Amino acid sequence: MTASTKTRRASRPSSSTVRVAVTQMACVADVRANRARQLHLLEKAAKGGAKILCTQEMFASQYFCQAEDHRFFSLAESIPGPSTDAFAKLARKYKAVIVASLFERRAPGLYHNTAAVIDADGSLMGVYRKMHIPDDPLYYEKFYFTPGDTGFKAWKTKHANIGVLICWDQWFPEGARLTAMQGADILFYPTAIGWHPTEKKQYGKAQHESWELIQRSHAVANGCFVCSPNRIGTEKVLGADGKPVNADGIQFWGQSFITSPDGQVIERASVDREQALVADLDLAKVEFSRTHWPFLRDRRIDAYGGLTRRYGDEG
Amino acid sequence: MTASTKTRRASRPSSSTVRVAVTQMACVADVRANRARQLHLLEKAAKGGAKILCTQEMFASQYFCQAEDHRFFSLAESIPGPSTDAFAKLARKYKAVIVASLFERRAPGLYHNTAAVIDADGSLMGVYRKMHIPDDPLYYEKFYFTPGDTGFKAWKTKHANIGVLICWDQWFPEGARLTAMQGADILFYPTAIGWHPTEKKQYGKAQHESWELIQRSHAVANGCFVCSPNRIGTEKVLGADGKPVNADGIQFWGQSFITSPDGQVIERASVDREQALVADLDLAKVEFSRTHWPFLRDRRIDAYGGLTRRYGDEG
Repeated sequence: MTASTKTRRASRPSSSTVRVAVTQMACVADVRANRARQLHLLEKAAKGGAKILCTQEMFASQYFCQAEDHRFFSLAESIPGPSTDAFAKLARKYKAVIVASLFERRAPGLYHNTAAVIDADGSLMGVYRKMHIPDDPLYYEKFYFTPGDTGFKAWKTKHANIGVLICWDQWFPEGARLTAMQGADILFYPTAIGWHPTEKKQYGKAQHESWELIQRSHAVANGCFVCSPNRIGTEKVLGADGKPVNADGIQFWGQSFITSPDGQVIERASVDREQALVADLDLAKVEFSRTHWPFLRDRRIDAYGGLTRRYGDEG
Repeated sequence: MTASTKTRRASRPSSSTVRVAVTQMACVADVRANRARQLHLLEKAAKGGAKILCTQEMFASQYFCQAEDHRFFSLAESIPGPSTDAFAKLARKYKAVIVASLFERRAPGLYHNTAAVIDADGSLMGVYRKMHIPDDPLYYEKFYFTPGDTGFKAWKTKHANIGVLICWDQWFPEGARLTAMQGADILFYPTAIGWHPTEKKQYGKAQHESWELIQRSHAVANGCFVCSPNRIGTEKVLGADGKPVNADGIQFWGQSFITSPDGQVIERASVDREQALVADLDLAKVEFSRTHWPFLRDRRIDAYGGLTRRYGDEG
């Protein structure tokens, strides 16, 4: 194993350096208030020189998947729609790329957990629809979101080649690999993950560590940057009866972070403070990392056919 | 994300618990001395109740891949051969499974970096041949080892379902996934990795962290245990002229470790001390982990076809 790579925020970015920002914030029941808050955070980062901005997962609402409730489908929006329109304006103004995580209404009865990618000229480059959909106590996403049909994608934006994956996707090395193979030098993972307050004491530390380390491993395996914005705050979503659907709710663990291609965390946000986390990424480190740790060179693609199987017992 | 899993060494293993040991040691130029040392270490662990034992990578010799030198092919042995014969005897005596990492001479001019799996009755269950072969300064493995043709395998040994991968394989999530999909509850990664002394100060910490975290990520992604024995000591392999082929050699970083399915390191060995690292693994944690963190449930096998491609640019 030879020389590694380390990225530090430079006061004067070199020509291959791009300043990125990921944001974390608490959400309220009012979509307009969340959107305004999100725009404010992104604008602050853009004013500070960030050229690629990414929101947390579904910033426009509370994490309604705590319950299976048909009322919440009304939170979805079309793409293009009110959020992408607002972000496009911001993107044009600051010549910044924006990745926006949204609850997408694609057609009557067809909803996705989607990220829209807006280029620095305000144009909508396309969408990524979350491919892996969780279903766990208080994370009832399979009720709302049709699994994505976009496959794994990368975009040549004005400022960098980027890929987007969403939350649960982060547990699947396959998604990171396929996105990197599409040319992404930076992977963004808009996220909404937190603790069940009742089990935080026993399991909380290990859960958070697993979350961070598996994304750091995607950086290492693929020689790319990984940026993960996660929401903050404790949310108790209200049912139709006006009472919390769960007495404890979810305590989102924040700690958005940015990792260099050697898996080192460059920047890590707080557990509970609203923040735009900023880092200057030297994209030349991708080539450096991939030639010094040449994993892409040595993949045994002749022996990976089994990865499209459910398990190894299919004869 | 719900309840995680944590494994501690129990004084009285439950019926689903198996005691494993991985060993780390320094190697000398004399193969017989290394083998005797290795047998001694394994026997000590077996006497202590360990039922699955795994050696570091190619324990029988120094890490000769520091140079491309035809003399070193003479270090290889057949399988079955002197090492597996000795281990089979030990396996029978202690009713223990042994995973032995060897330099295999398969046929004239056909050599592999191979792990032999010996069941608790002393029978040779089969071999795994290292699929991913590195080639880096002082790690000139492509000169010696034909890439494996075994594919990724698991064995139902007397004491557990195990898989074996070897060193460089550890950087490829595909290998871990495919091995877990063959039914392995424990992945063993016999390893020989170290620092270039001249770059240790600048890069050493990040390199070691990357190595550990990517293997911890395999545990998380696949809900299985990971056990990685690594060699210790500084080795300066001698060339035909009796002088070191490299003035600095390689300082192997030891720190063999054992990780539970939530990615937590249960046991970690020292940097430079000969050790049999022992842990009791509760195999019931695999089912627990995979139902509480149900990643195998949600893999998008319909969208993973691209993983058998070299890159995403092939049209």
